[in-house]
This record gives sequence, structure tokens and C-alpha cells, in this order.
Amino acid sequence: MTHKNPAIILIDPQLGENIGMVARAMLNCGFTDLRLVRPRDGWPSEHATRASSGALDKGVVVTLFDTTSAAIADCHRVYATTARPRDMTKNVYTARSAMVEAHEKENEIIGILFGAERSGLQNEDIALANGIITLPLNPEFTSLNLAQAVLLVTYEYLMQGDDTPDTQVATNLANKDTINQFSDRLIDTLDDNKFFRSEDLRPTTQRNLRNMLSRMEWTDQDIKTLHGIVSALTKN
Amino acid sequence: MTHKNPAIILIDPQLGENIGMVARAMLNCGFTDLRLVRPRDGWPSEHATRASSGALDKGVVVTLFDTTSAAIADCHRVYATTARPRDMTKNVYTARSAMVEAHEKENEIIGILFGAERSGLQNEDIALANGIITLPLNPEFTSLNLAQAVLLVTYEYLMQGDDTPDTQVATNLANKDTINQFSDRLIDTLDDNKFFRSEDLRPTTQRNLRNMLSRMEWTDQDIKTLHGIVSALTKN
Repeated sequence: MTHKNPAIILIDPQLGENIGMVARAMLNCGFTDLRLVRPRDGWPSEHATRASSGALDKGVVVTLFDTTSAAIADCHRVYATTARPRDMTKNVYTARSAMVEAHEKENEIIGILFGAERSGLQNEDIALANGIITLPLNPEFTSLNLAQAVLLVTYEYLMQGDDTPDTQVATNLANKDTINQFSDRLIDTLDDNKFFRSEDLRPTTQRNLRNMLSRMEWTDQDIKTLHGIVSALTKN
Repeated sequence: MTHKNPAIILIDPQLGENIGMVARAMLNCGFTDLRLVRPRDGWPSEHATRASSGALDKGVVVTLFDTTSAAIADCHRVYATTARPRDMTKNVYTARSAMVEAHEKENEIIGILFGAERSGLQNEDIALANGIITLPLNPEFTSLNLAQAVLLVTYEYLMQGDDTPDTQVATNLANKDTINQFSDRLIDTLDDNKFFRSEDLRPTTQRNLRNMLSRMEWTDQDIKTLHGIVSALTKN
């Protein structure tokens, strides 16, 4: 990766298990800089290691701090993640818009703050941030797991640099001649089998058949299979 | 919400705790239709209820099924979520591009398949889907928690918003039960006609047939026509 991915900073995290799941979510998205401010149950944590599914051994580096100020000392830009915007004069971002901005600032060290599981961030911590990230979730059920909140933000950052094509269309599509040859054969075979009951309806029915076959995205292999089906069904 | 959000369908989920976390992630994003196919540890599950943080009491409705076919019977469009694209002829989507498409199809019932925690989806399940969703995560650490995979997909749907203009005209797409009944009949008929030359290849060939048929956007009228074709071709 050309960018240095933002640091994830957990303030007063409670359960080691949640810290481990945060590390796992981070590494899923290529994040490796995890900073802990006053983890309640101490550090290192066996619960965290177990819940991280290897992320704490395979790339995520943890650093401990006593204060939020110390944890963000080297950062040029800091976002505070909250369930809802507080009464403060700061820009409020969605995870997506914040990560679009963060991804553009490739020469900055960026930190993203997450509060304790139950209480979230204190106003004193939010006061240190440049902007606030809120997650536009179901307002009737906002109880979001800490690791899931981290996942959505780190995923949005990852998606900014992702060059995967949106949709990779199935390859080896049959060309129209291949399809039409099959349509011709099918119609002839159906004719032999008295499929077209009335001469009046024959043109409409034939057109409907061609319509149906030409609308689909057949591959060459599909058309071979269809030929095989017709052969099998007409064999006496 | 004006849209009926897609159904989340877990095939062979193992831990009740993971099912509960899936329900929580779903409700965070306004999803309420959770379908379980053969949950290993049975249902209901105290572990699931506890891990759902109330989501299983507050809106997520769980339905149990014995087979994937039964679970998607009413669906018009089905996506299969996999860690990486398999060797199949189907469109491959990112979570975002799939949910852009799903959100546009407001008159369709949409299902999204997720496999077991360790093994993922079986090829037989993928064969029933219209397209494949892959999550473009860190290729060096793709161990993604089930609930987190569900969260990313449901979040992408939520992010499409309720006011996306709908430009897609609804067609009368056949549901999966209608399509699968035809597939069953076709395979039986082909069997009678000695289409499957070797017992070794039979499962693969059958899966390829189902794959081919389930990938397409058949209307109810198309399926009637296909039945008519088989009847016509097998009449002696």
C-alpha cells in the first residue's frame, strides 16, 4: 500500500475480547497501527489474542498510552467516532466522507478515536479531534459492537484505494450466431414434434422463443449443453 | 423504509453466538429477515439471544429451513457471498455494486447467502445464485467474522439510501421455487434419456445445469415455455 493507513485509537476499552476483534477487523482492511489508552483489563490480554484470530501476531502493532493527547501526539488529523453528533462546533462526517478525505491526505498521519463500549467518547476526547464521524445506521437500533464500528470505518478507507472492478461480468459469452443457430435448431425440432399447434400463432410463438433465448447471457458452454439436451430429449 | 430489505440466509451456521451477532449487525442496518438453514447447534439458541444485544427481540424475525432451495423459494434474485470467486460462470460483484443493483430492484425479493464460519458456501449452494459477492479485503488476512461479512453487505445496502431514484421497470420474474421445479423436472427427464453418461460426472453436470438455469432472469412465462418445450421434445 502506498498510503500509511490511519491509526485506530481505543479510549478506555473494556473487554480484551473486543480489542482482539478490533485487531481482526483492522487487519482485514490492511490497518496495523492500534493504540490503546488505559485498557481496563490491562495489556497484553489472552482474551484479545484469542479473539484476534491471529491478527495480533500477524501484523497489528499495539502501543499503550496513558492519555488521549499522548496517543494522538504524532497525528496531523484526528476524527472522533460517535453514535450521534454532540453539541460541538465541528464538521460531522459519515464514515465514507471522512475516509474519502483521509485517503486524500496521503502525507498526514491520521488518527481515529473510538470510545469505551458502553459510554462512548468523553467530550474531552472529542474536543481534541478535527471532526466527528457518525455512522448513519438504523436510528431505532444503534447498539453497534466496537469492532463493527471499527470495521465500517476501516472498510470505507480500504474502498477508497480499491481498484477491484465493480462488477466482473461472466466471461465466454456466446455470440449471437451461436445462439441463433441453436434457436433455429430448436424451432425446427419443435416443429417436428408438433409444438406449434396453430399456423396463426406460429410466428408469435417463434418470436417469443427467440426473444427468450436472446435475452439471456449464455456462454458457449451453455449453448453446447442446450444442444446436448435437445439431442438427448429427441433421441428415440 | 420503502424497500423490503433483502433476506440474510445463513447456510449451516455453527455457533449460536455468531447468529446473534449477525442479527445485531442486520438490525443496525434495518434488516429483519433472517433465514437459517440447518443451524448446527439448533434453534432457538440462548447464546444467539445474548449475543444479539436485543436484536432478536426487537425486530429480526428468524425462519428455519432444511434446504437452501426452500430458504430461497420466494426470492427473485439471489447473491452468494464467497471469500474469492470460484470457477463458475457468474457475474462477480463487490458488496457495493451488488447492493446498488439489489436496491434498484425494489419489486423483487432478494436473498443473500452466507456459508458456514469455517468452510464458506458449498458449490451446490452457489449454483443456485444469480451472482457472487466477494469482499475486496486485505488478501493477506481474509479471516472475516461471519457477522462482519453480513455487516459490510447490509451496510452497503443501507448506504444506498431510501431516496435512490428507481429507474428499473419491474418484470414478472419467476421465483426460485418455480425455477428449481423446472430444473428438477429437466434433470429427471434427462436422466430418463441417458444424458448423464458417467456416474462420476453426474453431480458436476447436474450442478452445471442448475447453475445455468439459476443464473438467468426467467419470467414465469419463460418457465411455462420451457416446460412446454420439454413436454414437446419428450412426446413420442
